[in-house]
Amino acid sequence: MFRLVILGSGASLPTLQRHCAAVAVQFEGDLHLFDCGEGTQLQWRRAALRFGRLRAIHISHLHGDHLNGLVGLMQTMSLGGREPELQVSGPPGLKDFLEAIRRFQGVRLAYPLRVVESTGGMLVRGSGYRIDCALLDHGPATLGFSLTEDERPGRFDVQSAEKLGLPAGPDYGRLQNGETVIAPDGKEIRPEQVLGPPRPGRKLAYCVDTRPCEAAVDLARGACLFVCDSTFGTDLEHEAGARGHGTAAQAASMALEAGVERLLLTHISARYHDPRPLLAEARAVFAATEMATDLMEVLV
Amino acid sequence: MFRLVILGSGASLPTLQRHCAAVAVQFEGDLHLFDCGEGTQLQWRRAALRFGRLRAIHISHLHGDHLNGLVGLMQTMSLGGREPELQVSGPPGLKDFLEAIRRFQGVRLAYPLRVVESTGGMLVRGSGYRIDCALLDHGPATLGFSLTEDERPGRFDVQSAEKLGLPAGPDYGRLQNGETVIAPDGKEIRPEQVLGPPRPGRKLAYCVDTRPCEAAVDLARGACLFVCDSTFGTDLEHEAGARGHGTAAQAASMALEAGVERLLLTHISARYHDPRPLLAEARAVFAATEMATDLMEVLV
Repeated sequence: MFRLVILGSGASLPTLQRHCAAVAVQFEGDLHLFDCGEGTQLQWRRAALRFGRLRAIHISHLHGDHLNGLVGLMQTMSLGGREPELQVSGPPGLKDFLEAIRRFQGVRLAYPLRVVESTGGMLVRGSGYRIDCALLDHGPATLGFSLTEDERPGRFDVQSAEKLGLPAGPDYGRLQNGETVIAPDGKEIRPEQVLGPPRPGRKLAYCVDTRPCEAAVDLARGACLFVCDSTFGTDLEHEAGARGHGTAAQAASMALEAGVERLLLTHISARYHDPRPLLAEARAVFAATEMATDLMEVLV
Repeated sequence: MFRLVILGSGASLPTLQRHCAAVAVQFEGDLHLFDCGEGTQLQWRRAALRFGRLRAIHISHLHGDHLNGLVGLMQTMSLGGREPELQVSGPPGLKDFLEAIRRFQGVRLAYPLRVVESTGGMLVRGSGYRIDCALLDHGPATLGFSLTEDERPGRFDVQSAEKLGLPAGPDYGRLQNGETVIAPDGKEIRPEQVLGPPRPGRKLAYCVDTRPCEAAVDLARGACLFVCDSTFGTDLEHEAGARGHGTAAQAASMALEAGVERLLLTHISARYHDPRPLLAEARAVFAATEMATDLMEVLV
């Protein structure tokens, strides 16, 4: 199961209601952070997340509203005594940027840092999940991300097991783990006799900042939750395109095309004091849409 | 009169109680910001200060906890339609740092930026005040600052004016502005006949991060308010020195030596959940000491 916490649902101009872009996603013991706008480390505290569980920070692109909290967070974890390696992923240019900042600010970290530049493919092979990225359509090189749970074993069919003469007990767990067991009558029972077909893993995708594009649709295909750029409303569709962003309705169209279960609109421009019109525009296209708010939590 | 608002009273590790270093000072219509740690632009909003009145940002040094909010604030003002020039002052290295950030992040500002690097001397000649800086003792080049109101004319002595045969009226204002006037009986009356001695302007000083040093004492000499580094308590005096900081008691000693009216302790380490012992240590040396808190306001 994924647990997602919106740390910042705003666009380039942060407000007291919407911080700059940042989303934390937890899968069992691992935490990942997607984007790290200014103030993310304090939002992290407000959400009562644990710095020690943070395995990697993935930066979509090098614009300040997605990046200006990164160095502060890295330093805070260093002051807090972090020892495990931290992965920081992003598009090409990230290494040079971090090197420049470290030189100018005299940053010394107490833990190893692994900077991964990518333009697409797998970023993390976790225990039970993976994280992939692909280039979106924003202007500067910008990555979208998907998190995909590994395929899960099929459901255990108790009736089949009982028909085969296997009573409830530890053997049920062994079969679910893929082992063959021996029934009390001496017969061999193989997992496929009692398990349904393997179930695909749950998936979520995070795509900001971007115009509507195929890469985002591909990342989101079949996702349980699609967190998507919705900087503007339809009234500013032209401006959205000119600035490399999307509208709420465009996010909804992508959600529809990708066959996702739920859409979550984020990266909302500060001009929308009342964002309900954006939500209505998206729902007219794709009903299962919600609007992100800071510190909102979603379980997938 | 100066109006000072503490936006961040914390040290390198920000907490929900103490943001990273930032202090706003208003003199009539001009606002100045000293240091700009991460999250300063949101603290600015919380304090209900006006971005349009911000004339200059003065960065003490290039460590992240004094700097990581700068680019975000600059961009927010640009998105907000700022047109007047903004001065950004700091120690040598500031220009190269800003140039690197602008290159990596693709920053484009809608207003002119004037970057001033200094190792001492006058930074701003305002209308009715000036801002000076000097190098402190921290490690990397670090500036302390003083704001000094221009000398004010002496107090107007109504009794002297009446004795000279001048009735209350617009001539009183002319005399206070330094003009000579003619009394009803034809006699010339010069300002020095009705004004007391000129009064020195009010002054405040801001010195973080620094070990105790002569430069800080010089900046603070005769100040009405001295805002000073107090990262640690006396128990960690050795650590304070090793890290280029001071203790509360050392700040108080400098306040005493500089003959200031009031001392305000700031840049408090996150380890002091209860900062009262630091305040007590300082007051044992210099009674007129207060502890800064985020969004505290002081009129001088």
